[in-house]
Amino acid sequence: MADRNRRLVLAERPSGMVDEGTVRLEEEDLPECGPGEALARVRYLSIDPTIRTWMDDAPGYLPPIGVGEVVRGAGVAEVVQSNCASYTPGQLLFGLTGWQDYVIADESERALTPLPAGVPPTTALGLFGITGMTAYFGLLDVGAMREGDVVVVSGAAGATGSTVGQIAKIKGAGQVVGIAGGPEKCKFVVDELGFDAAIDYKAGDVAARLHELCPQGIDLYFDNVGGEILDACLANLAMRGRVVLCGAISGYNDRGAAKGPVNYTALIIRRGRMQGFIILDYLDRFGEAQSEMAGWLASGQLKASEHIVEGLERAPEALNLLFTGGNTGKVIVQV
Amino acid sequence: MADRNRRLVLAERPSGMVDEGTVRLEEEDLPECGPGEALARVRYLSIDPTIRTWMDDAPGYLPPIGVGEVVRGAGVAEVVQSNCASYTPGQLLFGLTGWQDYVIADESERALTPLPAGVPPTTALGLFGITGMTAYFGLLDVGAMREGDVVVVSGAAGATGSTVGQIAKIKGAGQVVGIAGGPEKCKFVVDELGFDAAIDYKAGDVAARLHELCPQGIDLYFDNVGGEILDACLANLAMRGRVVLCGAISGYNDRGAAKGPVNYTALIIRRGRMQGFIILDYLDRFGEAQSEMAGWLASGQLKASEHIVEGLERAPEALNLLFTGGNTGKVIVQV
Repeated sequence: MADRNRRLVLAERPSGMVDEGTVRLEEEDLPECGPGEALARVRYLSIDPTIRTWMDDAPGYLPPIGVGEVVRGAGVAEVVQSNCASYTPGQLLFGLTGWQDYVIADESERALTPLPAGVPPTTALGLFGITGMTAYFGLLDVGAMREGDVVVVSGAAGATGSTVGQIAKIKGAGQVVGIAGGPEKCKFVVDELGFDAAIDYKAGDVAARLHELCPQGIDLYFDNVGGEILDACLANLAMRGRVVLCGAISGYNDRGAAKGPVNYTALIIRRGRMQGFIILDYLDRFGEAQSEMAGWLASGQLKASEHIVEGLERAPEALNLLFTGGNTGKVIVQV
Repeated sequence: MADRNRRLVLAERPSGMVDEGTVRLEEEDLPECGPGEALARVRYLSIDPTIRTWMDDAPGYLPPIGVGEVVRGAGVAEVVQSNCASYTPGQLLFGLTGWQDYVIADESERALTPLPAGVPPTTALGLFGITGMTAYFGLLDVGAMREGDVVVVSGAAGATGSTVGQIAKIKGAGQVVGIAGGPEKCKFVVDELGFDAAIDYKAGDVAARLHELCPQGIDLYFDNVGGEILDACLANLAMRGRVVLCGAISGYNDRGAAKGPVNYTALIIRRGRMQGFIILDYLDRFGEAQSEMAGWLASGQLKASEHIVEGLERAPEALNLLFTGGNTGKVIVQV
């Protein structure tokens, strides 16, 4: 056991992408493990777009990360010392560990909870974590996907998008089209994940390609990116089409330049609906999704795709991958 | 009975507001009234923002009006000659009469239907017509208004907005705030129609005033205008707030300049919903709304406010009132 704790704290709020000045590596003595607490070694960090939004001093569904505070983020940690009955050394815990080597788990707060037996840590952060839950409930509950629906998802090679498309196929969507950046990602979602088609948004007119591929319109669009791609999908919405707003990654690094979807009036003409959600509202239903997804994983219908980055100090670089499109699948830092 | 029919036809598609070149007055012989048909004299025309959208060569929920065709619009006409059992002279009919003196009613098409007994023609076009139905189903069905809701409506002194606010009060909204242009309209909706408060959008920062008046946020925003006011309401949305998209009048005369609502991401953080509708989908439920509204009218809880313009030839001018804010209440042309 190392006797120091490395922590990545927010040094200054970024304008644009995270850079060298944004996060500072600090070292401190190992935190004291008091009564009712356990000390846990962080093994994996979940790298999610929402972390970038927490770095801004802007209203959100959680307060901004304070300057000087450890960067907030989910992870998996292994108990190394325990002063309570709830946690035993060697046990793996899931929760908001933050970007650091060690975290204190307080049994009264229950912010860190044991991993279910048999679930690998990276699966806990990906398919069984916020990513997979977001895909499952966003598609099936917020989007109310029906059999036969024409489903389009952006960020299709990303963690959430790749899961959305696979679940849509499993649940009987009539057609699943992914939007991704570059021919490799497009090939990946079709050949590896079984999407029916993919559109390379870097290669041309997304709205025109959507019109070719989905001449009857889009019944359900799962939006991870916002911006022009959201507008292209609105322009191709089917009657009573639904837009699930999961994120707006295209605007996270430059809020000033963000544009609204000028085609939102398609919602009037096509009697459409655009709805946002935050996955934390579904916490008490995670179990039902996880048990269904465990079955799909076991049968091979659902594939986890992960992009592992090694080293705590590379967490900021890993976060930027989400915005440069440098990843395929769930980005995880192995601490 | 005059022996000529005056018709206002679309001479050229307008760019911006309707002007002298947009519509041309033509005269023709009275249309022949064949078997199964009646000839009816148009008495009143309903002037609605949607007519302006039909003048553009752009996709909509109905095809564009063709150049050279009579301007499409709803109205009330009185049967003057009948060759069928369905219609009798003196009877008042409601439907898409178009902007002209005379219309042929075909009993097999049923495009024109008799007015219910006891309903004045202007009420048939206003509260019991598209306007009132839009307010009723938009608020209660699409918006799913609940008792205690904080309801905000734009275009509050207009035909639909003034009805929305009154119905919201009758149905037990916790607070009803109207947004209108100028102190007179604001005074009107509060003093005459019983809104709790009004915001003059010409007088300053709408978002800041909304924040003062509705510190807990807006549960239901009924949007008639789009543009900056939609953005201001999105910025003040309550958790699980709903935006009902009825129209986007601010963009109807200049589609190129239309802007999307940059604050749409509030729908994610506040778990909100934005939904559009077209009232034609509710045709088979008009009866239920009309009977409930008849009761409110009789008891004095609901007030009709009408703005009558005299003369068929002034219909284009009446249409422009909707966009210049020159009207209070439902605009009707008395032919």
